[in-house]
Amino acid sequence: MEGRADLTRSKTSLCSPGNIMPSSEAAKTVEFGVALPVTTGEHQAKPRASLENLTTLLKGDLARVNRLIVERMHSPVALIPQLAGHIVAAGGKRLRPMLTLATSRLCGYAGERHVALAAAVEFIHTATLLHDDVVDSSDLRRGLATANAVWGNKPSVLVGDFLFSRAFELMVEDGSLQVLKILSRAAAVIAEGEVLQLMTSNDTSTDETTYLRVISDKTAELFAAACRIGAVLGGRTEDEEAALDAFGRNLGVAFQLIDDMLDYSARETELGKSIGDDFRDGKITLPVVLAYSAGNETERAFWRRTLEDQEQHEGDLARAIELMHRHDCLYVTWTRASHYGDVARRALSSFRDCPEKDALLEAIDFCLARTH
Amino acid sequence: MEGRADLTRSKTSLCSPGNIMPSSEAAKTVEFGVALPVTTGEHQAKPRASLENLTTLLKGDLARVNRLIVERMHSPVALIPQLAGHIVAAGGKRLRPMLTLATSRLCGYAGERHVALAAAVEFIHTATLLHDDVVDSSDLRRGLATANAVWGNKPSVLVGDFLFSRAFELMVEDGSLQVLKILSRAAAVIAEGEVLQLMTSNDTSTDETTYLRVISDKTAELFAAACRIGAVLGGRTEDEEAALDAFGRNLGVAFQLIDDMLDYSARETELGKSIGDDFRDGKITLPVVLAYSAGNETERAFWRRTLEDQEQHEGDLARAIELMHRHDCLYVTWTRASHYGDVARRALSSFRDCPEKDALLEAIDFCLARTH
Repeated sequence: MEGRADLTRSKTSLCSPGNIMPSSEAAKTVEFGVALPVTTGEHQAKPRASLENLTTLLKGDLARVNRLIVERMHSPVALIPQLAGHIVAAGGKRLRPMLTLATSRLCGYAGERHVALAAAVEFIHTATLLHDDVVDSSDLRRGLATANAVWGNKPSVLVGDFLFSRAFELMVEDGSLQVLKILSRAAAVIAEGEVLQLMTSNDTSTDETTYLRVISDKTAELFAAACRIGAVLGGRTEDEEAALDAFGRNLGVAFQLIDDMLDYSARETELGKSIGDDFRDGKITLPVVLAYSAGNETERAFWRRTLEDQEQHEGDLARAIELMHRHDCLYVTWTRASHYGDVARRALSSFRDCPEKDALLEAIDFCLARTH
Repeated sequence: MEGRADLTRSKTSLCSPGNIMPSSEAAKTVEFGVALPVTTGEHQAKPRASLENLTTLLKGDLARVNRLIVERMHSPVALIPQLAGHIVAAGGKRLRPMLTLATSRLCGYAGERHVALAAAVEFIHTATLLHDDVVDSSDLRRGLATANAVWGNKPSVLVGDFLFSRAFELMVEDGSLQVLKILSRAAAVIAEGEVLQLMTSNDTSTDETTYLRVISDKTAELFAAACRIGAVLGGRTEDEEAALDAFGRNLGVAFQLIDDMLDYSARETELGKSIGDDFRDGKITLPVVLAYSAGNETERAFWRRTLEDQEQHEGDLARAIELMHRHDCLYVTWTRASHYGDVARRALSSFRDCPEKDALLEAIDFCLARTH
């Protein structure tokens, strides 16, 4: 079994070591008294990266996106704006629509179409969140009760459908078949990723390749599409489209890796959702894949009991986190994220230096350094 | 309270009396030993109408639609074709795609695009069914266990999303923004109707106007869109588009009214879903609206207990059916359906006589006469 552990460790060295450091904040002790394993001596911690430059730069556009979102959430059926408003008000970072706005500008686009398409991207994301709420029993998302917990499964499904349709209406109004193709394809891939995730749930034999496919489909595809649209609006070449797609895709993978790491390490108040949600749901994320692969027979029995048989007791989450630290799984997860962050960074290299490019590069740092 | 009952009856007379008769088959006794109240002496029963002429006429097209459906259901994620195949194999009548195929031909369209668009219409319908399965606890749909009952809520939601996305991919490949506009609008209206239905669930104060809006949105909108596409493909005038929209819309309302009537009257083996599903779910359909409106205080207390408080005992469904017969609610529901069938029939009057028109007219008879 130790052979497996070595294999996991050697895999790590295949990844370009990340040069982006999470802030020292990230090293704060978490619940269960475990520190994040990311501030090793060899790295200098940078000041905490944020999305502030991006939001400042896009302030006007973003305000118009938000207005459009509120406007298009409207329906004479009262429950729809009520429920959709709940999840939209919960806000989130608006990271995906900001990617569309910023890449459009990076590509020299000076028109108005990016606002509606950014809103469409956010609607697709919100619909996915609502449908995801049906899937897991997470009680907290971004610090607010989920729509599902408040209204139940049914409205979440149906309002998700409504928002998804609204996204397509916005795209149809925009009138670009190229954009419609990108986003309808993305929507299908996201659904495939969500189903694949469901199929790997509770299955401790899931390997890293399958896990990567899940997060590439369910998360990174929309990041990629959001960025590719920017190149389309800017009338750029296919190579530039592909470069922005690669930027978004690798950023999305990094983002999800950190998300999955934080589920075993963030402090609940910061993450805004319950720590250990994935564990309780039996989701097989990279930290679990690594811990299972590196574990001895006793440890594997623990993972099978808790995740496959879903038989969990007091103290099991703490034990899971302890095992992850024993095998460096959270650190390795972070190095993977850092690797994808590097790839995303390189994908932007052919674009001219400008405030938008700087802000997008900082968004990579933000995704890697975030503690929630 | 009797005043209310009279009001309900007088409302009935506002509707054009239907001239389309259900077959004598429909008068067969149902479970609970109650006969359908539709064979009054003044009407001559026609031979049972069927979709046979439509399916024969469209045989080649329909085979290509079915092949395309199977092809586009494919995904490397095994559960998707497995689950989607379950619901697609369950088959259904393919009524909605046949409407697109038939109206296209009626409008003189001789190309190939109608096949893909008919498949898109069916995918939207199938996605709605899958999401509807999350909503109600119906154990039987068309005689097979629902996807939901076999696989659970989560896969039904996600595979529905996948099929919905595939529908948009098919439309985007077709490349008509006009068609995309019609179907993305329809998808949003369907979702609104489903949410409105949810809001009226268990609410015995729901009136007929609200009920009609629910079924117009959740069911008739897709019938209307499926038919309108035919006029678009045929390059017809806006008036003709509107006429086919009206045909589909009124047919859809009639179809749903009969569906809701059958839930209290069909024989289980024929309907292919459990009789009394709507009752058990506390759905407020027209038979209930009419019975509540016509009922005395004791009867209303019964409806409130069973539908609002969802407190149901052995014998309650039989009592519900008995009350509906006491107030002629199933017959009145049928006359409403017959009225909408007439409107649908008139909407086709400006189109040339041809086998497609005859088959579409027969589809109205089929919807009104069906016993399942």
